[in-house]
Amino acid sequence: MMPPQPPAGRRDDDGPTVAALLAPDILAMLDDDPASITLETEELHPRDLADVAEALPAERVVEFLTALAPARAADVLEYLDEELRSEVLEKMSARQAAALVSEMTPDDRADAIEELAEENEARAEAVLAELSPQAREETERLLAYEPYSAGGLMTTEFVAVPESLTIEEALGRVRGMARAERREAMYTVYTTDAEGRLRGVLSLRELLAAPEGARIADIAWTEVVTVPATAEQEEVARLTSDYGFVALPVVDAERRLLGVVTVDDVIDVIEEEQTEDVQKLGGMEALDDPYMTVSLPAVIRKRVGWLCVLFAGSLLTATVIERYEGRLSKAELLTLFIPLIVSSGGNSGSQATSLIIRAMALNEISLRDWWRVAGREIVSGLALGSVLGVLGLARVIVWQRMGWYDYGPFHVRVALTIGLTLLGVVTFGSLAGSMLPFVLRRAGFDPASASAPFVATLVDVSGLLIYFTVALALLRGTVL
Amino acid sequence: MMPPQPPAGRRDDDGPTVAALLAPDILAMLDDDPASITLETEELHPRDLADVAEALPAERVVEFLTALAPARAADVLEYLDEELRSEVLEKMSARQAAALVSEMTPDDRADAIEELAEENEARAEAVLAELSPQAREETERLLAYEPYSAGGLMTTEFVAVPESLTIEEALGRVRGMARAERREAMYTVYTTDAEGRLRGVLSLRELLAAPEGARIADIAWTEVVTVPATAEQEEVARLTSDYGFVALPVVDAERRLLGVVTVDDVIDVIEEEQTEDVQKLGGMEALDDPYMTVSLPAVIRKRVGWLCVLFAGSLLTATVIERYEGRLSKAELLTLFIPLIVSSGGNSGSQATSLIIRAMALNEISLRDWWRVAGREIVSGLALGSVLGVLGLARVIVWQRMGWYDYGPFHVRVALTIGLTLLGVVTFGSLAGSMLPFVLRRAGFDPASASAPFVATLVDVSGLLIYFTVALALLRGTVL
Repeated sequence: MMPPQPPAGRRDDDGPTVAALLAPDILAMLDDDPASITLETEELHPRDLADVAEALPAERVVEFLTALAPARAADVLEYLDEELRSEVLEKMSARQAAALVSEMTPDDRADAIEELAEENEARAEAVLAELSPQAREETERLLAYEPYSAGGLMTTEFVAVPESLTIEEALGRVRGMARAERREAMYTVYTTDAEGRLRGVLSLRELLAAPEGARIADIAWTEVVTVPATAEQEEVARLTSDYGFVALPVVDAERRLLGVVTVDDVIDVIEEEQTEDVQKLGGMEALDDPYMTVSLPAVIRKRVGWLCVLFAGSLLTATVIERYEGRLSKAELLTLFIPLIVSSGGNSGSQATSLIIRAMALNEISLRDWWRVAGREIVSGLALGSVLGVLGLARVIVWQRMGWYDYGPFHVRVALTIGLTLLGVVTFGSLAGSMLPFVLRRAGFDPASASAPFVATLVDVSGLLIYFTVALALLRGTVL
Repeated sequence: MMPPQPPAGRRDDDGPTVAALLAPDILAMLDDDPASITLETEELHPRDLADVAEALPAERVVEFLTALAPARAADVLEYLDEELRSEVLEKMSARQAAALVSEMTPDDRADAIEELAEENEARAEAVLAELSPQAREETERLLAYEPYSAGGLMTTEFVAVPESLTIEEALGRVRGMARAERREAMYTVYTTDAEGRLRGVLSLRELLAAPEGARIADIAWTEVVTVPATAEQEEVARLTSDYGFVALPVVDAERRLLGVVTVDDVIDVIEEEQTEDVQKLGGMEALDDPYMTVSLPAVIRKRVGWLCVLFAGSLLTATVIERYEGRLSKAELLTLFIPLIVSSGGNSGSQATSLIIRAMALNEISLRDWWRVAGREIVSGLALGSVLGVLGLARVIVWQRMGWYDYGPFHVRVALTIGLTLLGVVTFGSLAGSMLPFVLRRAGFDPASASAPFVATLVDVSGLLIYFTVALALLRGTVL
């Protein structure tokens, strides 16, 4: 009935995933013979089935999931877009929804209930009430942690064995656990003492490779990298990435294992954090949800705050010009270069700030490095400023010589003013752009708030001051 | 001899890792009793030992690594900063270096040789020549792939078994492989047919959970997500992240397994790609190496190109003002608001472009969505522009009423000019900022090149045109 299946996971650069192209066939089966769907799709990865579900008309998704076995449908649910998942769980009866989420891994189940609660608190409560007492208790425990903490990320399905076991006994336990229920975090085995405190760690590879008869305590590593449940998700991501872990254990104050954070969730965290940083760098608050799914009023709210702050900052440029107007009125031609000068400073500042914000995000530099960074940026700024300064100077001279514009008898001084100002503004921009993230971080703010527009506005105002100061020094007595 | 060891992996917000604090103890041991180092550090994760090595004086690192067993030193080498690693391999004899890199996983070995070749081509050749024929052949094969492709990322240490085996036979094979040599990518088991073509995949968890006596072909999934060796690293990262894989197989045209890319390398790719995007968004070329390790001339080179391009674009602002000067000369007061107006347009454009670039990087939107995005941005731009327009209008009226500045008898018209211009410029900025990534991508460029400064420059020039057009329409016959 199904056409030959396309290679999974392929996606045209700008098309739907190939799996999503199966949606029409699935629809036909839903109409004719829903029971056949399980068999026809049994070799597909749940991720691909989630793509299929997202390509179906919204009102058929529940039907599609119901046609699958509950464990399979739960797998699909884990990969489903958050909004669609909440919608599906809202449309089902609370009992149906509970049956589905019961089959999810504990961390994904808690996430699904949390998202559902955001849309429909009463329905989330109803689904919780329909869970088995054990699943409910576990879910409520996970929901109690901050969502962006290690506790909020961890799953409680991990493999821990007493350190007194032999390798063969431990392997038997691991196999038993793998059979009894899904253990998401299987590839790292933790050993515990009689009180259940974490004592050691070994990879499943090391367990399989260990000589028979050895004791697990002899093989396990005793220096275990752990985090408390309150650790921020950035810290969890940094450790996982630095050490190349597939799982990171979360412990309480007595070093008892509470759960583990698995690498797939860490990748999601890294991508989330990056999205936040890019949006902040663009000069707005982070959206928290995919661009196309956020409502327009919400997008506007996230953007308008910073726009107004930056606008207020920019108002100072008008004030600066008003202040100098009297003294500059004889040299209207200076206004020609105002946008050029402020933009050049803003551009070098934007470069510097994005370099520093990223280096801070990757822990390549810390607060103590500020003076080394300042030194580097002054040198870079002087070099870049010299290049632009020469270009600016040349612009005036060339236009004058070619007769394209007349800057008057003192055009060489005007050219020098433009060149020197560019040197100063670009150097100041680099320095200000690189130091702003340090200042923000020192003050306890997120350094990523030092957005490109923020730096540009800062440099706009100071750039004008530099410009007018240089002009008054070089042109007084001539055109001024 | 060693003090009680601190918890591994901890790091003060701005301090060194705690492991690095062990460096003085290690130095003392190197002086007194190098043989004791192996035992004293045996429980430490190689990542922590790499931190120790990075905290040692550069000239002692070789000594430190030589004090460890070669397999252990190779583990440390894998985590070492790239530059230090090349330096260490340059300082050792070619034979010593070959002994060390022989113990590394094939992909990391190829990376180490490649980095060494960048510093010292002859030395890299010498180390290659000292490898065993098999290791040399494998390394040269990996080096032949593009570094930023699936082939360049993959390791050749994977676990593949014939599909004809039973579960117990397969498990025995896997344990044998784990014992015989390090298999980095152990957690996913691939099944192959008699010709060695990839047929199926199962996780090690599924292998352990499978009922005894079953055949592996019955358990394995036959829809395997694969990539060719030429696949770009972004594609590898996207698939691994979307599916939550710990490993992704790389196959040739006949579907024979060439290698697998493991999730730890994918995390590195994701972070690299993100660094590139942030730096491009800041208006420069990507640095490719950590900020502090890149030489100043190299940083300046990466920045100066875009700065000059943007400068050339900004020169148009001077031309626009020169063009309008004749008609505007009676309304000097318009120049007061030039920086304010061009910045506001640039800021809304910067917001829009960072939103779209990130959504494209995450595959949330594709080229086909351009008109939906345009619609959203026009609405957002009008809303945001109205807010700033009212603020701008109020600025003129308030200053006039309070007597802080005199905009003349037609100050209401001036205020309207500023307000309407802001509305237009912010709307145009949002639209231009959101469409530029689409245009770049359509033209085959990286959409991330649509940097905040690029958009700002684009909007500077068009913002001035909008400003002067509105002014001529509203103020003709009054102050103009």
